[in-house]
Amino acid sequence: MSVLRQQALDYHSLPTPGKISISLTTAAETSEDLSLAYSPGVAEPCREIVDNPDDVYKYTAKGNMVAVITNGTAVLGLGNIGPMASKPVMEGKSLLFKRFANVDSFDIEVTHKTVEEFVNTVANIADSFGGINLEDIKAPECFVIEKALIERCKIPVFHDDQHGTAIVTAAGLMNALDIQGKDIKQVNITCLGAGAAAIACMKLLIKCGAQREKIYMLDTKGVVHTRRDDLNEYKKLFANNTDKRSLDDAINGADVFVGVSGPNLLSQEQVKLMAVNPIIFACSNPDPEIKPEDALAVREDLIMATGRSDYPNQVNNVLCFPFIFRGALDVRASTINDDMKIAAVHAIRALAKEPVPREVLIASGVKELNFGKNYIIPKPMDPRLLPTVARAVAQAAIDSGVAALPMPESYML
Amino acid sequence: MSVLRQQALDYHSLPTPGKISISLTTAAETSEDLSLAYSPGVAEPCREIVDNPDDVYKYTAKGNMVAVITNGTAVLGLGNIGPMASKPVMEGKSLLFKRFANVDSFDIEVTHKTVEEFVNTVANIADSFGGINLEDIKAPECFVIEKALIERCKIPVFHDDQHGTAIVTAAGLMNALDIQGKDIKQVNITCLGAGAAAIACMKLLIKCGAQREKIYMLDTKGVVHTRRDDLNEYKKLFANNTDKRSLDDAINGADVFVGVSGPNLLSQEQVKLMAVNPIIFACSNPDPEIKPEDALAVREDLIMATGRSDYPNQVNNVLCFPFIFRGALDVRASTINDDMKIAAVHAIRALAKEPVPREVLIASGVKELNFGKNYIIPKPMDPRLLPTVARAVAQAAIDSGVAALPMPESYML
Repeated sequence: MSVLRQQALDYHSLPTPGKISISLTTAAETSEDLSLAYSPGVAEPCREIVDNPDDVYKYTAKGNMVAVITNGTAVLGLGNIGPMASKPVMEGKSLLFKRFANVDSFDIEVTHKTVEEFVNTVANIADSFGGINLEDIKAPECFVIEKALIERCKIPVFHDDQHGTAIVTAAGLMNALDIQGKDIKQVNITCLGAGAAAIACMKLLIKCGAQREKIYMLDTKGVVHTRRDDLNEYKKLFANNTDKRSLDDAINGADVFVGVSGPNLLSQEQVKLMAVNPIIFACSNPDPEIKPEDALAVREDLIMATGRSDYPNQVNNVLCFPFIFRGALDVRASTINDDMKIAAVHAIRALAKEPVPREVLIASGVKELNFGKNYIIPKPMDPRLLPTVARAVAQAAIDSGVAALPMPESYML
Repeated sequence: MSVLRQQALDYHSLPTPGKISISLTTAAETSEDLSLAYSPGVAEPCREIVDNPDDVYKYTAKGNMVAVITNGTAVLGLGNIGPMASKPVMEGKSLLFKRFANVDSFDIEVTHKTVEEFVNTVANIADSFGGINLEDIKAPECFVIEKALIERCKIPVFHDDQHGTAIVTAAGLMNALDIQGKDIKQVNITCLGAGAAAIACMKLLIKCGAQREKIYMLDTKGVVHTRRDDLNEYKKLFANNTDKRSLDDAINGADVFVGVSGPNLLSQEQVKLMAVNPIIFACSNPDPEIKPEDALAVREDLIMATGRSDYPNQVNNVLCFPFIFRGALDVRASTINDDMKIAAVHAIRALAKEPVPREVLIASGVKELNFGKNYIIPKPMDPRLLPTVARAVAQAAIDSGVAALPMPESYML
C-alpha cells in the first residue's frame, strides 16, 4: 500500500471514524442548563418561532448550517460510486466549510430512483438548513435538480461543481488574459469537456464578456456544432455553426484552452497550434489534460493553470464556496444569483493583484508571490479570502435585492 | 416576560443562535492535512467503501451519528406547531444525545403532504446516519411511519415518544409494584390517554407481564371498549368487553394509574377510589394529571411519579434514549427490538436499587436517595446509566442476533 494511501486511510479512521462530529454551543452540565435546553424551557423559543417564523434564525443553528447533499453519481475522479461510498468526500466538504469560513455543514447522501424523487427528498428537508450545497451530481441531471430546488427552496441552493469551479476559473482566466494583454470579448476559447463544470464555466465566462460564438466546446464525440442531433439542451446552447470537428480543429488558433475532461487529452502538438500568448487551464484532477512541464516546454509564452496544489496557479473551488456561502448566510440571502457569483469572481481576481502577506508565503512554502504568469489566483490558505470574498458577495446580495439583512457590523471593520 | 422565559430565549440565542454546531475530529490546518481530508487523499476511503460497503463505518462519522427527525405534528405540550417551530426541541434532543452518551446527533425537520412522502424522504436520507430517532410525530401516523421505516432502513429506527417513555415508565412502575407488594400479572391499570406514548407504554407493560384485560385505556371519549365503532386499529388492541365508560368507572379499584394525557384531569375524589397501595404515574408535562401534593394528601399509601424534575420519581426519557442508542450503535445493531427495550427496562430498574454515588446526591440537591416510595427511578444525572443501560442493550442485541459486532472491549472494564 502506498504511503499516501495508508496516510489517507489512517486520517479517516483515527482518532474516531470520519472527520466531523456534533458539538454543543451552550452549557449542558447542570439540571438548570437542561431545563433551558430542553423541557420546559425549550418551549419558549418554539412559541416565538410559531409567532414569527424568521425567529428560527435567532434561536436555532439553521442560519449557519449548510447541507452538503449528493447522490454519489459523479464523485471526484471516481465517477458514479453511489451515495454511501461518496460520504468521505461529503464530510471532507463539510470540513472545508468549517475550516475556511466557520460555516457549519452537514452531509446528506440521498438514495433515489428518479430525479423527481431526489428533488422532493431534498426539498422536504431543506428547511432544516440555512443553505444547500449540491455536490458531485452528474450532468445533465444536476441542471434539472439545481433549477427545481432553487425554485422550491427559500434558502440558497448552489451546485459547487458547476459554479464554484466556474467562479475560480473565471477569476484566474481573466487575470491571465490581463497578463497576456488579451480582451475577453475577442478571444477564441476551446473547452474540452461538456459536463456540469464545463457548461457552467462557459456560461459564466459569457456573463463576464466572452462571445458565445468564439467558444468551441467538445464532448467525447468532438466539437459541439449545430449539425449534431445528439446534443442535450444544455450542450445545444454552445453548438456553433462551424466546420471544426476535432480537438485539432478547435485548438488551432485558440487563445484559451479550458480542460474539464480527463487526463492527458491535450498533446504538445496541439499546444503548438494555439495562438500567441496562449492560456491553458488543464483542470482535470488529479491528472491534468497536459502536464505543465510538457506544455511549457513547447510554449514559453504560455500561462498555465491546473487543479493541482504542487504546481503554480491552482484552480481550487475552496477559493470560493466557503466564502460565497459565508457572505450569503450573513445577509440571509434567499438565493445565490449571478450578481453574487460575478462579485466573487472580481473579489478573487483583485486579491491576486495585492501584495501577499508573509504567512501565506510560509504556508505556501515559497519566498515570494507576485501577480504574474505563475500567480494569477490567490492561494487557498490566504486568510484574506474570507473577509474579501464574503463581503463582496454580501454586498452583491444586498444590491440585487435578495438579502434579508443589512451588511453585518463585523464586515465594516 | 417571566424570568424563565427570558432565560430560555437567551440560552437559545447566545453566544450563537441555537445549541449545536459542527466540529472537526481531524487536523485541518496545513495543506498536507487538507490533501488527506479532501482531494486527492479522500479518494482512498471512497475506494475502500466501494469494495466493502461496511467500511463506511470505519472511515466516516456514520456509525456514531443519529438523526433526530420530526414533522412537528406533536411537539412537547405544544401540539402541531409544524417542522420549523419544532427545531429548538430537536436540537435539544441532539444536545441530550451528546451530553449523556456522546452520541453525535443531527436534527432534520421534514415538510411533507402525506405519510408516504414523509417515509420516502426519511428512507432516502437514512444511509447518511447510523440510527434514526423519530420525535414528536402525532398518533396514529407515527405507528405507520415507524413500521414502514423499520422495514425499509438497515439502521435502528426508534420513536422515542413511544418507546423511550414506555421503557422508563415500565422500569419505574415495576419498581413501584415491588415496593407496594403487587404482582404485575394481577394489577388493574387505568391508562388515561390513547396516543403514541400511552399505547407504547401499555404494549410494553404487557410484554413485561401485565394482563391486557386488566388494562382500561381512556381517550377523550372515555373508556376504550369493544362496543365503540370509532376506534383506530391501535386503540382497538386495548378495547375491553366492559361496562366501564368514564374515568370514575375505570379508576374504581385500580392499582395503577398511568396518565399520558393532559393537566389536572385526575381529581382527589378519583384517587380515593383506587385500590389499597396505589401507584400514580401522572406524566403530563409540564402540568401533571394531578399534583403530587394533592394526590398524597388523600392517599398516604400512594407511590407517585410525574414528568417533573422538581418532584421525586421523575419519568424522563433521557434515562433511556441516549443509552439505548449508545448500546445499539456500539454493537452495530440493525434494529432496536423488544429484547433490547426490555433489557433497558431491567437495567434502569436494577440501578434504582443500588446505593447512589455522592456526586448524584450533590447533582440532585438531596442528602440521600434510598430505593423506596420516593426513589423508584434513577436520576437523569446518574453517570452509571451510560455503562449500565448501554451494556444491557448491547448484550440483548447480541443475544437476539441483531448485532453485527461483538461486545466492545470498553464495555468489559
